[in-house]
Amino acid sequence: MSKPTLGLVGVGKIARDQHLPSIAETDLFDLVALVSTSGAAVPGLPTFATQAEMFAAFPTLDAVALCTPPSVRHALTVEALRAGKHTLIEKPPAATVSELQDLVDEARRADRCLFATWHSQFNPAVDAARDLLAAGGVQSVAVTWREDVRRWHPGQDWIFAAGGFGVFDPGINALSILTRILPTRIFVQAADLLVPANRDTPIEARLAFRPASDAIRGPVTAHFDFLQEGEQTWSIAIEMVDGRRLDLTRGGTVLAVDGVVTVSEPDTEYRRIYRRFRDLVDRNASDVDAAPLHLIADAYSVGRRRTVAAFDW
Amino acid sequence: MSKPTLGLVGVGKIARDQHLPSIAETDLFDLVALVSTSGAAVPGLPTFATQAEMFAAFPTLDAVALCTPPSVRHALTVEALRAGKHTLIEKPPAATVSELQDLVDEARRADRCLFATWHSQFNPAVDAARDLLAAGGVQSVAVTWREDVRRWHPGQDWIFAAGGFGVFDPGINALSILTRILPTRIFVQAADLLVPANRDTPIEARLAFRPASDAIRGPVTAHFDFLQEGEQTWSIAIEMVDGRRLDLTRGGTVLAVDGVVTVSEPDTEYRRIYRRFRDLVDRNASDVDAAPLHLIADAYSVGRRRTVAAFDW
Repeated sequence: MSKPTLGLVGVGKIARDQHLPSIAETDLFDLVALVSTSGAAVPGLPTFATQAEMFAAFPTLDAVALCTPPSVRHALTVEALRAGKHTLIEKPPAATVSELQDLVDEARRADRCLFATWHSQFNPAVDAARDLLAAGGVQSVAVTWREDVRRWHPGQDWIFAAGGFGVFDPGINALSILTRILPTRIFVQAADLLVPANRDTPIEARLAFRPASDAIRGPVTAHFDFLQEGEQTWSIAIEMVDGRRLDLTRGGTVLAVDGVVTVSEPDTEYRRIYRRFRDLVDRNASDVDAAPLHLIADAYSVGRRRTVAAFDW
Repeated sequence: MSKPTLGLVGVGKIARDQHLPSIAETDLFDLVALVSTSGAAVPGLPTFATQAEMFAAFPTLDAVALCTPPSVRHALTVEALRAGKHTLIEKPPAATVSELQDLVDEARRADRCLFATWHSQFNPAVDAARDLLAAGGVQSVAVTWREDVRRWHPGQDWIFAAGGFGVFDPGINALSILTRILPTRIFVQAADLLVPANRDTPIEARLAFRPASDAIRGPVTAHFDFLQEGEQTWSIAIEMVDGRRLDLTRGGTVLAVDGVVTVSEPDTEYRRIYRRFRDLVDRNASDVDAAPLHLIADAYSVGRRRTVAAFDW
């Protein structure tokens, strides 16, 4: 089968660091054009100012990968699907639950593949953890996601503006891993949202979940913190009913069982994403995991807010 | 075709005022049993303390109508579907987006009908408004839902506790009508949530929506207010592109075009609900409109909070 043709939309840091190298290495798509509003270009590839101009120039284009900022993602995804393109989108797939549902419906109407990538889901350590949890009873789960917002988002006021997700911006990565590895669905039972006096979104959050079945016996909790200086922590600790302890650390790239590392293979996630995208395109099947975004919306809905000290950069 | 057998779960005010008379009048289901924790009974009908006991006594029961308070709705719905019963649930269908998605998935797995009733959607005036909006361009839409919480929910502190919906408890009725009549999907663009200093949920909310298509030209807004004394207002005002003005008032039961009432037929909604339920059961088809709950979750997610004066009964 000849390779599907692909256009990449939005040539920023994530496109250069991850998408372009992974597309080249996996060699499963024929990258034929770029869209960039900043004029950034890759030698040998035609670059267009808008997605519509790319579609006009390459009417038989099969697929697009959208690597733009979130604010324009919904409109571009709708445009791509209506133009009949299989579409890969970066995370988070939408700003609101309603927009994500709209994209799912658009993909169905267009009869094209929509692939909403939660990149952290695509690590071998995550798959290994999922298999272990499926095979045995889970006693408890504790997510700890602590990072320094000043280091990773310096000066980005939008993250603390209404709709900017706040500490849920990294937290949704944790939830995308959590919902992928757990053997049963979870619901938000309670949430404490700590919001700086001069901001709209939480800088810290503590969530308690209720499992949908007794495949998980004990508590499932998550602690997201945006004020962690020094060592950064992105880890999930799991106690199994049989006494084993699983630690999924470094953002889902390393798995240890009872303190012994069993899987450690960072930086392959985007190659796995493009293999998965090609498989979805070949089957004309969509893959949109709405659960992480739903859990964030639910935390906002049932959460209790507390005002904490003002935050300034 | 013989009538499906039905069990009614939760014999409170809504069951006595609406469900029982509508089941009797429409004569489309054979009501054979009740479940009531308070022992309240209807002459001639066996009453059980739990849903499971009713299922054990009537193993061939076809359907249940769940009229319980929201807190136990999810668990009872899962139990009913897993027992193979077609299931009607009162509004709101779930406390969170994730729970509602879970119910949809359970119904699919069980291959049974799940009918999430938004009762206000089932008025002839709502249908008439929907037809008018589908036929012509919509210029603007303004929802005004102002009621006195002290009159309708006296002393019910749970409504202002985290997860209790606050002014979104009546507001979700407005949104269920809005999403039913509009010719295109809407997204929450901005929301102001006014929360009393001593409570967790809003007592007033102003929402601005962005239409998904140009079938709606101008602004779509909603104003929910829980402190309205005197006359109570549950109305939706629509300006059409051709200059006509539509007013859907009294909670969606009366429609006026340019000031002239064209439809006014209150109190038939539950009869229409049971006709619809029977049709769904006959076709083994589900009807779950998630849009109203999604919009509330989105308003919480992207909304800006302001603290207002403490509220006491």
